[in-house]
Amino acid sequence: MRTQVAIIGAGPAGLLLGQLLHKAGIDNVVIERQTGDYVLGRIRAGVLEQITMDLLARAGVDARAKAEGLPHDGIELLFQGERHRIDLHALTGGKQVTVYGQTEVTRDLMQARAAAGLTTVYSAGDVSLHDFDGEQPRVRYTVDGVAHELACDFIAGCDGYHGVSRASVPDSALRTYEKIYPFGWLGVLADVPPVSHELIYANTARGFALCSMRSATRSRYYVQVPTEEKVENWSDDAFWNELRTRLDPEARERLVTGPSLEKSIAPLRSFVAEPMRFGRLFLAGDAAHIVPPTGAKGLNLAAGDVGYLARAMETYYGEKKSDSALDRYSDLCLRRVWKAERFSWWFTSLMHRFPETGEFGQKIQEAELDYLVHSHAASASLAENYVGLPLEEF
Amino acid sequence: MRTQVAIIGAGPAGLLLGQLLHKAGIDNVVIERQTGDYVLGRIRAGVLEQITMDLLARAGVDARAKAEGLPHDGIELLFQGERHRIDLHALTGGKQVTVYGQTEVTRDLMQARAAAGLTTVYSAGDVSLHDFDGEQPRVRYTVDGVAHELACDFIAGCDGYHGVSRASVPDSALRTYEKIYPFGWLGVLADVPPVSHELIYANTARGFALCSMRSATRSRYYVQVPTEEKVENWSDDAFWNELRTRLDPEARERLVTGPSLEKSIAPLRSFVAEPMRFGRLFLAGDAAHIVPPTGAKGLNLAAGDVGYLARAMETYYGEKKSDSALDRYSDLCLRRVWKAERFSWWFTSLMHRFPETGEFGQKIQEAELDYLVHSHAASASLAENYVGLPLEEF
Repeated sequence: MRTQVAIIGAGPAGLLLGQLLHKAGIDNVVIERQTGDYVLGRIRAGVLEQITMDLLARAGVDARAKAEGLPHDGIELLFQGERHRIDLHALTGGKQVTVYGQTEVTRDLMQARAAAGLTTVYSAGDVSLHDFDGEQPRVRYTVDGVAHELACDFIAGCDGYHGVSRASVPDSALRTYEKIYPFGWLGVLADVPPVSHELIYANTARGFALCSMRSATRSRYYVQVPTEEKVENWSDDAFWNELRTRLDPEARERLVTGPSLEKSIAPLRSFVAEPMRFGRLFLAGDAAHIVPPTGAKGLNLAAGDVGYLARAMETYYGEKKSDSALDRYSDLCLRRVWKAERFSWWFTSLMHRFPETGEFGQKIQEAELDYLVHSHAASASLAENYVGLPLEEF
Repeated sequence: MRTQVAIIGAGPAGLLLGQLLHKAGIDNVVIERQTGDYVLGRIRAGVLEQITMDLLARAGVDARAKAEGLPHDGIELLFQGERHRIDLHALTGGKQVTVYGQTEVTRDLMQARAAAGLTTVYSAGDVSLHDFDGEQPRVRYTVDGVAHELACDFIAGCDGYHGVSRASVPDSALRTYEKIYPFGWLGVLADVPPVSHELIYANTARGFALCSMRSATRSRYYVQVPTEEKVENWSDDAFWNELRTRLDPEARERLVTGPSLEKSIAPLRSFVAEPMRFGRLFLAGDAAHIVPPTGAKGLNLAAGDVGYLARAMETYYGEKKSDSALDRYSDLCLRRVWKAERFSWWFTSLMHRFPETGEFGQKIQEAELDYLVHSHAASASLAENYVGLPLEEF
């Protein structure tokens, strides 16, 4: 089999890239280790930047996100028992974010890909990448024990942190940066109406909490827990009780609880691998970088990478046949990635309790929150990062 | 002897308070452990916020600062070999800072105090504070071995970090917060023209550097050095050579060197003691809090405290005879102090090299600098803190 671009991974990054390339007339095949149902079963973020919505529109896959997604003009910061609204819309000259679950984005992209008759290989075993340092890269994999080979011009590694793409790059060619946070997020998904129509980020004496949602009837809540905490130790009741203690009185009263559809503990990590290109292999999304979920940058960063990559490939396959955009891919992505890494690290540092920073660190955090919500400039800086820094032209 | 307000310490905080109280018709005596010449010999900061200039004006001691001080509309941040200007004036709607040495501020205040015929006791030995938890506090001290006692309504502790005022408060009544930074500033004062007409804050692979000045012909330069460094190991030549390596090519070429008038290493520390009032004893300035010098907040914070304290005492002695403003002194000061502590910590963290933060921390710092100079909101946040957050009304 032959294609122009072999895309490794059928998560939202790989599928979005596939649609963008398809719209530009660039042939592509997606290779996925898991089944489609498995991919859809992964519960992930749900806050889309305008840039991500724009890319979905360009890919022709924004109809349901626009119809069913919830536009949010603000977020609330809860600390010292009081909520303070950050008016994202006013502070950014009219920008907003859209609450729409990553699972739904993936579903929409899967359906569009199927409708366009594009090839997706699910349940691909033993995926391996070859010769991406030369002119004719190939991807090998098995289906039901039968070996296949896909010849291509380029490989796009969209297969996440644990995927084969980054692992195929020699260690000596990679530089990695990592920070592990001393806590995780215990999350519950439940079919109950959200406690508030906007997200609440809470910094409390008992730790961070986040009140988020996927729709008007489905809520997603998180509480900060120690790294070593086990999800088995948390009954639904225990979770709701803990969340309740971290809310302000009004939210506490409004909180509707119910059985959890999903409950899990996610560690918090910052990770970047540099560069994001190796010959004809391009990494995008979680394959190259991880952010802690505070600020919801993970999916949006992946979309940004894919937006850059699709444009670079359009340039390559277009009239100019130029490598120059592909050559700039890694630097352009990384500049934006590091800004989002900084924002995610900062917002995580601001909103969580860090026992090891001591009392001085705690007071600094309180002073920063007090400053942040009372300074137009500081609020505007938070807002412009939250709605997403712009993609650069190239 | 009797007075309304006994002021401990004849540094700029104590002397400014004395003048503000005098202008309001409130009698005061300043008690200083050292000689006047010793006080004037201390080389300190030289960047005054507008708030500090306004307080000097209210005290009637701003003539020379206005005539000889250098108004600065911006600062420069140097990183990755390039300088980026932060336009303080444009970003804050017209505010600026004034470069005028603390030594000169002190000299002006001393002269004004002498001209007004106010009592200052220099070379006071064995200063001790008594009965400030009651209605009739007293200050005891010796001059030339002879014991004296000063009865007063209030004591203002303006005698710095090592002074007797904070040390007179029982440990159980104080809560302290501290952070020690793993480096110091090696500083040189020299009668050479400044390398640039604005301050340059440099983050370089060899560490932080600051190009500052006291006047058009007197420069003040600093380089970050390890905590354990000894000033004896630094010849003038060694200092200039090190500074030169931390500048951009243009500044390197413009740098004029000369013999040092003063050379010393200062540790960097953040410190806050809470509360700032104990009965009839009020702490102000370094007696209650220390900031690292990055951002030049030390003297300006002291001026802010003294501004609040003078207003509170005016209210007390005025028609209303109200304690309420005195009651609010500590909280009002501390809210502003912590914001300045946060800013000074942040600016220090941003501009210095911290070996222990590792490569991730280093990349985050680079991303923040890149973001900072290209984001209007982030630049405006730096600028509003640099020119000084406003005093609150009360």
